[in-house]
Amino acid sequence: MHFTSCARNIDSIEGLPALGIAGAGFGIGTIGYFFSHKKQTDSSTLEVTDVPKFQHDTSASNISDACKEFSHIVGSANVSTAAQDLLIHSGSDFQSYAWTPETATPGAAVVYPGSTEEVSKIVKVCHRRKIPITPYSGGTSIEGQYIPTMGGVAIDFTRMDRIIEVNPLDLDCTVQPGVGWQDLNHELASDDLFFPPDPGPGAQIGGMIGTGCSGTNAAAYGTMKDWVLSLTVVLADGTIIKTRQRPRKSTAGFDLTRSFVGSEGTLGLVTEATLKLAVKPKCEAVAVCTFPSIRAAANAVQSIISRGISVAAVEVLDEVQMRSINVAGLTKRKWTEQPSLFFKFTGSTDVIVEDSAKLVGKISEKHGSTSYAFAADADEREELWSARKNALWSMMAMRESPTDKVWTTDVAVPMSRLADIIEDSKRDIEQSGILGAILGHVGDGNFHSILLFPEEKRDIAEGVVHRMVEKAIAMKGTATGEHGVGLVKRDYLEKELGKATVDTMRMMKNAFDPLCILNCDKIVRMAPKI
Amino acid sequence: MHFTSCARNIDSIEGLPALGIAGAGFGIGTIGYFFSHKKQTDSSTLEVTDVPKFQHDTSASNISDACKEFSHIVGSANVSTAAQDLLIHSGSDFQSYAWTPETATPGAAVVYPGSTEEVSKIVKVCHRRKIPITPYSGGTSIEGQYIPTMGGVAIDFTRMDRIIEVNPLDLDCTVQPGVGWQDLNHELASDDLFFPPDPGPGAQIGGMIGTGCSGTNAAAYGTMKDWVLSLTVVLADGTIIKTRQRPRKSTAGFDLTRSFVGSEGTLGLVTEATLKLAVKPKCEAVAVCTFPSIRAAANAVQSIISRGISVAAVEVLDEVQMRSINVAGLTKRKWTEQPSLFFKFTGSTDVIVEDSAKLVGKISEKHGSTSYAFAADADEREELWSARKNALWSMMAMRESPTDKVWTTDVAVPMSRLADIIEDSKRDIEQSGILGAILGHVGDGNFHSILLFPEEKRDIAEGVVHRMVEKAIAMKGTATGEHGVGLVKRDYLEKELGKATVDTMRMMKNAFDPLCILNCDKIVRMAPKI
Repeated sequence: MHFTSCARNIDSIEGLPALGIAGAGFGIGTIGYFFSHKKQTDSSTLEVTDVPKFQHDTSASNISDACKEFSHIVGSANVSTAAQDLLIHSGSDFQSYAWTPETATPGAAVVYPGSTEEVSKIVKVCHRRKIPITPYSGGTSIEGQYIPTMGGVAIDFTRMDRIIEVNPLDLDCTVQPGVGWQDLNHELASDDLFFPPDPGPGAQIGGMIGTGCSGTNAAAYGTMKDWVLSLTVVLADGTIIKTRQRPRKSTAGFDLTRSFVGSEGTLGLVTEATLKLAVKPKCEAVAVCTFPSIRAAANAVQSIISRGISVAAVEVLDEVQMRSINVAGLTKRKWTEQPSLFFKFTGSTDVIVEDSAKLVGKISEKHGSTSYAFAADADEREELWSARKNALWSMMAMRESPTDKVWTTDVAVPMSRLADIIEDSKRDIEQSGILGAILGHVGDGNFHSILLFPEEKRDIAEGVVHRMVEKAIAMKGTATGEHGVGLVKRDYLEKELGKATVDTMRMMKNAFDPLCILNCDKIVRMAPKI
Repeated sequence: MHFTSCARNIDSIEGLPALGIAGAGFGIGTIGYFFSHKKQTDSSTLEVTDVPKFQHDTSASNISDACKEFSHIVGSANVSTAAQDLLIHSGSDFQSYAWTPETATPGAAVVYPGSTEEVSKIVKVCHRRKIPITPYSGGTSIEGQYIPTMGGVAIDFTRMDRIIEVNPLDLDCTVQPGVGWQDLNHELASDDLFFPPDPGPGAQIGGMIGTGCSGTNAAAYGTMKDWVLSLTVVLADGTIIKTRQRPRKSTAGFDLTRSFVGSEGTLGLVTEATLKLAVKPKCEAVAVCTFPSIRAAANAVQSIISRGISVAAVEVLDEVQMRSINVAGLTKRKWTEQPSLFFKFTGSTDVIVEDSAKLVGKISEKHGSTSYAFAADADEREELWSARKNALWSMMAMRESPTDKVWTTDVAVPMSRLADIIEDSKRDIEQSGILGAILGHVGDGNFHSILLFPEEKRDIAEGVVHRMVEKAIAMKGTATGEHGVGLVKRDYLEKELGKATVDTMRMMKNAFDPLCILNCDKIVRMAPKI
């Protein structure tokens, strides 16, 4: 028996505003604003105009009193208000945000905790005193993630740099946030293991989790999200939680681990991470192919991937980038200044590696590749791959003046649109008159542009970045493939994801951190843009 | 210059309760309880005793009026209050929860929407009327996920079964929640693509996302979390959001996609999913090895994995399970009744597949394997793998009476503890006197026990499951590897993750769904256990 409708005028019922309880709740919410920071409605989203105004207290006396408490927790040697320390924690030349030492707006203090318990105590002080917190580790992020726009206190994880345990049989390890990924891999090498995510040199696990980074290995191994098993996190009120134990697989409740990965310290501060590890491939090879055009290179990659051929990495460098490598001279070899694909192949036997490499060679040739350099020997491999590794530094050598700025940004699009957007962006860079190169994790539909310009041409660079991002979004891609959101990319999120989705993120942020003290106003604006 | 502490008695400052705003907020929260459902504190967690009492209205008149509205939205043919429909949506024999048709507590109505917009309208009605909602698709979950313990309305996604688009070049597709994974793979085969997660037959995308399922392919391809690019979700207040566009990689804000995967419909209802696809491997082979003991088999797997040898799947079946396959006779072959490993190998060439298979054969032999059957031919492969595929049904044939119950449960532990826990659990099953087999996704440290028993021995089965889960947790594993939490596993979460972590999940649930109408009280208890 199915229910038969006999209602009259149902539209009017459905069209009614949610009166009654929800309405009353809103009334109390308005009154409650003076007392509480969680908005009181029955809504699942939170608009920026409904976020209670921050009640941060960054007065000199409050900071000074807080620093006394911090000193008691971590020792006075680990609390700094020195101008140089504050400046280091206020930004860097690599920010896409227009940072300079002269215009920097440093925070008020830097605290260096040594343990999860100390972080919890520090956060409790800040929670009670309503002092904004900006987390810091490595300092290699480029979207303004650690710029202390709200003032307050930086928590620097430099001292928390221990590898706590490595479990080779379980293929996992537990580390503190201040461990660098390169140092970790150095340690793991003796067990023939490695941690795949490979962002810029100097990056540390804490920041890598915050950004949800990736790198060249993502084509085969995925991104940071895929390599974190469990996190110990200090929440905004100082509560310590651990998101998981150590099984490789679990469906035990909400995926808090992945909620924190990519949240840039806005939902909690990571103080310990259990990471998955991969077995170092027994055999490895590298190949470099040059192509007459970026499109030909992109087509070759599409063809390789759609045949299910396993490549450990595939990177594209455009002719400007290749020229810069020759100019900088950081590698021994002289390179053909044409769009090039850099491949990595790995496997448990030489046969497997060579078989994949052969297939890739054939497909590249079909797509017009004019040269194919292959290396299985360790030194030769290193030499070939060194061009890719030195790409950013090589571009730096192309600056016309040492005061020229560099703006590295990235977007990602569905694979089939990659050639279109790269071609478009290259044309746009050429027309802009500033120098720029394209460099891409082409296996993921993700690429970077590196722009060099004098400060007075910032608006031109900004225009190039803006148009590239708009194009990526129009192609059903993303404003940020692996660099996070920080400050500059915030205002693209609504366009990319829709207002309701951003309002959902804001609701989540507000639930985790009702006082908005954790890296407040990053990723999602918590106050209207002025 | 480092700050020097001159504070007296800081301990007492730090020890102060968070008075002032937080305290006053709590007061208002208590008053506000009558009007609003979001607790008003500055805390980042929510204890079960602080959740406002549900104000659900499941009165006959409210449901009847709601059904009139539903009929207006979806047509009266798509609203049912028929007893048989309600019973089907109240549970099944496969639940670990003690469900029988006689003791079932059905909900009050089932609604069958046809679009995202219809789901949003239905949810808005329920939100306004405070009617609990239980989502339903496929109905193959076994931890009680779709049992309508709060009464109210089931939303059944059967009609939303369209594959909306397949983008072969982008390796993605967009589908509605009522699409079965087997049907999807059938459609994708013509493009040489497939969707890797392979849970039980009959499962549909909506439920697979809810549970965060996996299956035999997880060893090589990961779980559901790794294969969802974007979700369209209807939130508790009817708001429609889309978590992402279609890039393979993105760091655009919080990972809402993965917040919903595994949340069992408690945070929102998935109405559309964009899924990543994999290229169907050109070449495939299957091998089966028998071992003198489970430990020898587990050691072989450990050895294979730690050498980085690529296997597409590796499953362990114990001797009870192998015997059941012979007894049931669902496969042609007569099997050795010993612990056995089932391997799948895939690759882009025969050479790659054979090379991996050879290595695995050698390692298995070293670990005492007494036989190694290998098949690359499609029919032979199918025949070998059929034993694994029919495992559950074969066990069903071992029931002494057709009214005997089956309880399938799973846990996961760090790889190195797998042999220990399987041996322990087998001993425990033997001592319990009930019939049980072990079957495992051994490459992930994840295994299932299948227990058969007459209803009057439920407490014995419960004891076995309880001890297995407790052991897994003690070994730093999880109470649930791939079946989700639902009802039965809820009370293990605090033990596994800690109280503060569960309180964080509860805070998140309350923020997304302040009226607790979406599959309320599943995963995380929202009311104290009575």
